[in-house]
Amino acid sequence: MVAPVDNLIRALSRLPGLGRRSAERAALALVRRPEALLDVLVAALQEARAEVCCCQVCGGFTSRGRTPCALCTDAARDDGVLCVVEEPSDIFPIERSGGFNGRYHALMGKLSPARQAGPDELRLGALAERVARGSVREVLLALSTDMEGDATAGYIGELLKPYGVRLTRLAFGLPADSGVGYSDPLTLKRAISGRVLCG
Amino acid sequence: MVAPVDNLIRALSRLPGLGRRSAERAALALVRRPEALLDVLVAALQEARAEVCCCQVCGGFTSRGRTPCALCTDAARDDGVLCVVEEPSDIFPIERSGGFNGRYHALMGKLSPARQAGPDELRLGALAERVARGSVREVLLALSTDMEGDATAGYIGELLKPYGVRLTRLAFGLPADSGVGYSDPLTLKRAISGRVLCG
Repeated sequence: MVAPVDNLIRALSRLPGLGRRSAERAALALVRRPEALLDVLVAALQEARAEVCCCQVCGGFTSRGRTPCALCTDAARDDGVLCVVEEPSDIFPIERSGGFNGRYHALMGKLSPARQAGPDELRLGALAERVARGSVREVLLALSTDMEGDATAGYIGELLKPYGVRLTRLAFGLPADSGVGYSDPLTLKRAISGRVLCG
Repeated sequence: MVAPVDNLIRALSRLPGLGRRSAERAALALVRRPEALLDVLVAALQEARAEVCCCQVCGGFTSRGRTPCALCTDAARDDGVLCVVEEPSDIFPIERSGGFNGRYHALMGKLSPARQAGPDELRLGALAERVARGSVREVLLALSTDMEGDATAGYIGELLKPYGVRLTRLAFGLPADSGVGYSDPLTLKRAISGRVLCG
């Protein structure tokens, strides 16, 4: 195998959803049709690199120079319900489900004793500040249904206790060891409407 | 969805092996971790764009400045057997199978009346020239087992008739409507050792 093709296969293999075989097929198609595929992809990557950033309020993806983002500034959305997600990308499937009309807060990860990811690496201080401002009635936890998600939910429960806010989580309905990013819109919609009180 | 992220999803969706959903997951991972994923991928793509070209002899992928390629110049390989493939990428799975030790000739496609892809767009003249030079005893056709592959095989049969060369094709064993790029090494190895005379 030619070395630059091998490097390209390795770079593609690191993306979620691409096995070694699909990465190989993709790499060969890219070098076979550079104008049609490779140049287009490089341009899209460079544009995304230059233009996409995270909203300073919710942590979700937005265009550079547009922070707070469209979801944070949309006057039609309910300031009273704050949906906490792990990753900025988790916001998209929830929006697609059509089951939620409040605001978002992306933590940028979850608590993980195994990976030594502690509370300081997450946007937990910013979450407490938003809740402390007083307009939030309910915090809806849309976290993974695994041990790390549960640990994160427990931590947030303690963190927000002083504010007397209603704390809910997505209804079970999500399969175990999965997360928001893997769920279809209907499953997510049902999980949002069936959400239950924590503790 | 943020427009540059949408563009990136579209560019990734055009690659073989990536559905809309995997393209979306890959795009979100890329913008979430630009240093670890996006920059690495852009560098690999740009390196491949700059360094990879097609060998002037066999048509396979090689590094720029290295044409004829390593397979064409390897003295341990048999000049007497020439394996004809559709795409440069078809050479990799055949090499991986360990069942072939001759030279290669990539056509850069196949005949397709439906897509109006005629003989002039393929490296058929170059194939005839290589055979005319006289050292080739056998031409092994490793083409798709579909109508277009059959049409291409028939055309090459007529093209090479004047040279009295032995014309073989891969043994059946490949599934119908498939091609070299989809086969596992063992299937390919059996197909190479069981190859049969054309016509």
